[in-house]
Amino acid sequence: MALSTKPYKGARDFYPEDKRLQTYLFSTIRKTVAKFGYEEYDAPILEPLELYLAKTGDEIVNEQTYVFTDRGDREVVIRPEMTPTVSRMVAARRQELPFPVRWFSIPNLWRYERPQRGRLREHWQLNVDLFGVAGLEAEHELIVVVDEIFKAFKAKHDMYEIKLNNRKLVDHFLLDYLGLDSVQAHSVGKLIDRKNKMSEAMFEAQADAILTPSQREAGVLNKLLGVMKIKKLSHLPEDLREHDSAKDLQKMLDLLAASGITNAHYDPTLMRGFDYYTGIVFEVFDTNPENNRAMLGGGRYDGLVGLFGVEPVPTVGFGWGDVTLQNFLETHELLPPKKTPVDVYVVMLDLNLYEKAQKTIASLRSMGMNVAVDMTGRKADKQIKSADKQAIAFALFIGAKELEEGVFNLKNLHTGHEEAHSIERIVTMIKDHRRK
Amino acid sequence: MALSTKPYKGARDFYPEDKRLQTYLFSTIRKTVAKFGYEEYDAPILEPLELYLAKTGDEIVNEQTYVFTDRGDREVVIRPEMTPTVSRMVAARRQELPFPVRWFSIPNLWRYERPQRGRLREHWQLNVDLFGVAGLEAEHELIVVVDEIFKAFKAKHDMYEIKLNNRKLVDHFLLDYLGLDSVQAHSVGKLIDRKNKMSEAMFEAQADAILTPSQREAGVLNKLLGVMKIKKLSHLPEDLREHDSAKDLQKMLDLLAASGITNAHYDPTLMRGFDYYTGIVFEVFDTNPENNRAMLGGGRYDGLVGLFGVEPVPTVGFGWGDVTLQNFLETHELLPPKKTPVDVYVVMLDLNLYEKAQKTIASLRSMGMNVAVDMTGRKADKQIKSADKQAIAFALFIGAKELEEGVFNLKNLHTGHEEAHSIERIVTMIKDHRRK
Repeated sequence: MALSTKPYKGARDFYPEDKRLQTYLFSTIRKTVAKFGYEEYDAPILEPLELYLAKTGDEIVNEQTYVFTDRGDREVVIRPEMTPTVSRMVAARRQELPFPVRWFSIPNLWRYERPQRGRLREHWQLNVDLFGVAGLEAEHELIVVVDEIFKAFKAKHDMYEIKLNNRKLVDHFLLDYLGLDSVQAHSVGKLIDRKNKMSEAMFEAQADAILTPSQREAGVLNKLLGVMKIKKLSHLPEDLREHDSAKDLQKMLDLLAASGITNAHYDPTLMRGFDYYTGIVFEVFDTNPENNRAMLGGGRYDGLVGLFGVEPVPTVGFGWGDVTLQNFLETHELLPPKKTPVDVYVVMLDLNLYEKAQKTIASLRSMGMNVAVDMTGRKADKQIKSADKQAIAFALFIGAKELEEGVFNLKNLHTGHEEAHSIERIVTMIKDHRRK
Repeated sequence: MALSTKPYKGARDFYPEDKRLQTYLFSTIRKTVAKFGYEEYDAPILEPLELYLAKTGDEIVNEQTYVFTDRGDREVVIRPEMTPTVSRMVAARRQELPFPVRWFSIPNLWRYERPQRGRLREHWQLNVDLFGVAGLEAEHELIVVVDEIFKAFKAKHDMYEIKLNNRKLVDHFLLDYLGLDSVQAHSVGKLIDRKNKMSEAMFEAQADAILTPSQREAGVLNKLLGVMKIKKLSHLPEDLREHDSAKDLQKMLDLLAASGITNAHYDPTLMRGFDYYTGIVFEVFDTNPENNRAMLGGGRYDGLVGLFGVEPVPTVGFGWGDVTLQNFLETHELLPPKKTPVDVYVVMLDLNLYEKAQKTIASLRSMGMNVAVDMTGRKADKQIKSADKQAIAFALFIGAKELEEGVFNLKNLHTGHEEAHSIERIVTMIKDHRRK
């Protein structure tokens, strides 16, 4: 039986046109984060299981990981996220690194889940992290980086919105304002995290089930539901509004506004799934309802580096998946036209001249041309058809007469126009065309 | 207990200075192969096990693969090589692809083996493949590509040698010239493949053990050993020398010489491990004995695409590991000096001015500068120390007076020289410095 040609379920093959798009996305990102001094790092796709047992959200380790035992009896995981890895790497060089440390990476990550729009088993995720800054300036810079990446892709502010919350405000809200115990607070937190994926009634019923009879009597559910509806910090009850964590959020919004970022606002339902966040958290959403998932998210997680037995480091970071980015750019028609990197296709009129033609071909390349040579020995029209199918702009014909005279027919495959020129002239013409 | 900060055994963390080097290697390669019209592709790191059971060398699937069962009960492999994957992808679009197809990729690959010099469990491997050309022009182009990559890294011909053989000549030699049966031929082939890793005596003993008494009597062992010593096609016994497969090798050497590649020669001990090769094979070795492994290897494998139930496609390809490339460049002192991508480090003289300073910082970035801002609130000398440790060339000081006057002190951290200038002048100075 013949072998299947399909890729592994939920993962993508990248044919050249797909890879070209990915390269465009990633190189745009790389250029933008470099402006802020972020440097790229990477790490093995396999990590020991223990790394994820410490402070990640439960969901991830239990049901969604690719975990297996290697031939040396070690339990290993194909990384589902990069944050534990980057924390490990910073901890390993805690003493010698010059803080603040600005690092980014675009790793591929694996999660075992049902493939659906915006979610695949393998995806790439931009991770940007800033280590060693305790103040709000850190979160501010990250959101400015996000905004600059959107700008680099020519996105406008009305195409996305930035939602902010503060884990410290959430804690104060759940523990002090609502008066929940820590187990209840954790459960309600997880419930709020899933709020936008269920009906109002379902949310109410599940929240109610977590409360004690006396809490129910005291109207805790209504207090919870009331705050969930608030979209402005100034509308919060005084006890919440005056808390330091809320003031930090307000400072954050002011700082962002001063940087021209006006599409950010407070959202009490924003939680972020991972347990390791300790302060401000944020997510960015497409304003087009077609893409209803968070495109990216992040926040402050000051506790992770310390888990490796070194002095803790204040840290902020975010992750941005390639699939959600690509869906966003497609929806808003921001993807550039597809273009082949091949400048000229050499049509060999007689394959016996292949050896003799090498000098001409090499000189084209040395003058900066990307040259694909047809060495199939087919008739010229078949060769041209191959070039056409790849949307290559020019075909250059090499035969005995051409090699002797040093003059070659160049055909513009878009217009059909054909003219004979020297190699130098041909290179100038193609370069002119490339600039357009 | 604190978590370990070590990466998975046999795999590497890429800290920014390591990643910078990898980026240099890969971008040099990408630019070079693009000149020949090769386009990048990629695929999932997980593949179904069946893909490797077909025609890969035995060693790989049995002992060296990372194979496991996923949560959907599928047997999957973390890819140990890219050739089966690229064959699968070409087969999937056999009908619509415009041949000749020129593709490359730089995937990470995993093999479970004892880590040693030049061999790690995870490595990246340049894969360059040309589909749809049956003639020797295909192998010629691949070797020219290899040579151009060496040139792009400023390597000279005396630093490496290209060894060639032909699987068809090997078959003729083993089956017809030595008169082995096909099982014996396969065993002797595998033995020759390991010849350089054992003593002469060991090779003789193991080869002898494969032969029948009558073959021993007929002097087959001596015939085998005699040919193994020959390094020139013209010195081969007439029966081998006059075989078409030897003539193809000679044509190949002539074609390479015409392209100025004079460091290539025939080697009867060259086999290549994989079972799927069908014609010319080649490997490239560092002439420095410190790196004794093949740096790269490849050849013709016309049978793989057809395994997927489509019409076969003549194919040549090679693979080149990042570890062997890096060892080669290090040994020959061809690696470029390490340089930070950060142009200027902003020292905040008063962190309360962070919001006010945003305009100045943003304008530096919009003029093309890579700017890292110190927002730790530490004293200026501590901030400068961080910049120094990263070997950043310039520090720019922002305080109240500077923001008011629009004139900023710029300190060259290499020379210690400090001068006040406008932002525009500073950008010009840094750009001048960058060009040096």
